[in-house]
Amino acid sequence: MIDQRHLPHALVVEDLDTVESVFTAIREMHVRGAPLIGAAAACGAYLATTDTTTPEGVDASVIRAVGYLKEARPTAVNLAWAADQVRDAVLQANGFEAKIDAARNAANRIIEDELDRCRLIGEMGLQIIEAAAARTNRPLNILTHCNAGWLACIDYGTATAPIYLGHDRGLKLHVWVDETRPRNQGARLTAWELGAHGVPHTVITDNAGGHLMQRGEIDFVLVGTDRTTRQGHVVNKIGTYLKALAAADNDIPFYVALPSSSIDWSVGDPSVVPIEERDPDEVHYTTGSASGGGTASVRVTPPGSSAANYAFDVTPANLVTAFITERGICPATESGLRSLFPESENR
Amino acid sequence: MIDQRHLPHALVVEDLDTVESVFTAIREMHVRGAPLIGAAAACGAYLATTDTTTPEGVDASVIRAVGYLKEARPTAVNLAWAADQVRDAVLQANGFEAKIDAARNAANRIIEDELDRCRLIGEMGLQIIEAAAARTNRPLNILTHCNAGWLACIDYGTATAPIYLGHDRGLKLHVWVDETRPRNQGARLTAWELGAHGVPHTVITDNAGGHLMQRGEIDFVLVGTDRTTRQGHVVNKIGTYLKALAAADNDIPFYVALPSSSIDWSVGDPSVVPIEERDPDEVHYTTGSASGGGTASVRVTPPGSSAANYAFDVTPANLVTAFITERGICPATESGLRSLFPESENR
Repeated sequence: MIDQRHLPHALVVEDLDTVESVFTAIREMHVRGAPLIGAAAACGAYLATTDTTTPEGVDASVIRAVGYLKEARPTAVNLAWAADQVRDAVLQANGFEAKIDAARNAANRIIEDELDRCRLIGEMGLQIIEAAAARTNRPLNILTHCNAGWLACIDYGTATAPIYLGHDRGLKLHVWVDETRPRNQGARLTAWELGAHGVPHTVITDNAGGHLMQRGEIDFVLVGTDRTTRQGHVVNKIGTYLKALAAADNDIPFYVALPSSSIDWSVGDPSVVPIEERDPDEVHYTTGSASGGGTASVRVTPPGSSAANYAFDVTPANLVTAFITERGICPATESGLRSLFPESENR
Repeated sequence: MIDQRHLPHALVVEDLDTVESVFTAIREMHVRGAPLIGAAAACGAYLATTDTTTPEGVDASVIRAVGYLKEARPTAVNLAWAADQVRDAVLQANGFEAKIDAARNAANRIIEDELDRCRLIGEMGLQIIEAAAARTNRPLNILTHCNAGWLACIDYGTATAPIYLGHDRGLKLHVWVDETRPRNQGARLTAWELGAHGVPHTVITDNAGGHLMQRGEIDFVLVGTDRTTRQGHVVNKIGTYLKALAAADNDIPFYVALPSSSIDWSVGDPSVVPIEERDPDEVHYTTGSASGGGTASVRVTPPGSSAANYAFDVTPANLVTAFITERGICPATESGLRSLFPESENR
């Protein structure tokens, strides 16, 4: 995996070959992004099969690993969803080799399916970009928050998939990138991705988006999600809600790129979704490239001040213009989601 | 003056004894905050009187200095207001010594009046804090953005004046401090001020306030302003507008501490107020205390990415619950402001 903590200052690839190393990589955010931590957890569950020699041992090891991996981070639903799939595949298979094959196949299928979902979100979202581009004769200005790019998703990304596809097809696009404090996934990761792909972009502080909307400098907002409830409430990186409010106040469309793996059909009311609180040092300190080379951290706050670090917030469904899923675009309502995913009625 | 760029990591006091040094201190934000840059500009205009020997020389020097100082920063109205007062006092005085005295007296009067205004805002705002405290039996949670403390205002502060007064009178208060990217005036300055005064506080990212409001963790918002139009539209640090939207969405009062020196009676429509754009490096880099001692800057963004740095935004009057002025509390409307400042009808 790419250890994303070091981007954009260094490209560090890390081998993860134990359940514990996968757990640490997820918790400490070497890997992050809802689809990616799902895929990583699935691979972690598969790795648990390799340290045992009996069918019963495989079952016990995978059950234990899945319970453990699900504790790494609480908010994104993909993590539990993916780990449970590997566990269920193992439990349903018979025999030692078959269980190991089932785990490997389940993990690989999650990766392949996530790739397909992102690619299809790109095609579905391209309709929105093309329609918006047809209404203007200047480059389209899209605001995004955090990183819902290929780094978060194996490839394509969710929110970035339509952007890359539109750019590749010659549409003139410019992306406003929220820096996304405290971990700066926008300034570090989305900016790096877009730059590598040649997509024009400008990094702004998280404070600036409302002002840009008031001035007509944003055509629409496009973000990802860590968990969306069946009623259409969107749990995403802290600060997403503020941008949704500003979009509504300025009559600007607010879209959420939503692979079905991020839908939590079991939850309606978003207040039951656990909101991760992370180390306050992520607020106190900022890490970046140092003038003398390498990276360094600086402390901004006074020594005696405390900080709080909430990682996600909830954007109510009524602030979301539409979801872009791998099966098409739908309103941010339960009936909208069920119309695209009728099999969800069984959940 | 305190060179605020170094806080909270070092307390550096800078002597400003030329017009040029005052200009640089304002432009480069050694001093910042609407009331303080007004006072600094007034002192700068006075300094212009000291390098000439004739009444005509004083007039010319002050006129030139005032024009120059007003270019240092465009958004806060106090700067031009204060500098013009010194110029007008000089032009109305007769004789060399009288002109110098007039400049000194005008600058000192601006300082004294600003102190009085802040002190009175504290007393007026205390009513709001006491009323809110009477409705709850836990510490009051107040959110503030940027620094509208004594560092911005010579003493007391505007938004902080009621907070300090309430704290001193034994009311239980806790302040959520927006870090206020890109220059981190909240994390660096407001946190330092509140800590020095013993006021409980917690620094949060600018992204977090909406989430805290949704969870009932904020009783009201209290901010300052760099310029408020006569219609009640509030130009303040970038990101203020997003907090005002969230406050309205969660039925939380949003107050603006407004010394009359920050009211621009000449402007109704806020779109004509110049919004300062500062160096993009303020977004690319973050400065703080380094682990080895001293301060350092780190770059967060990739080398090839550009950034934009808008310093202020406009909060529409309809999102403001009330203004706290030195003469009392009023609705955020032209009639509300004129009722407290009837002499403004002549402007």
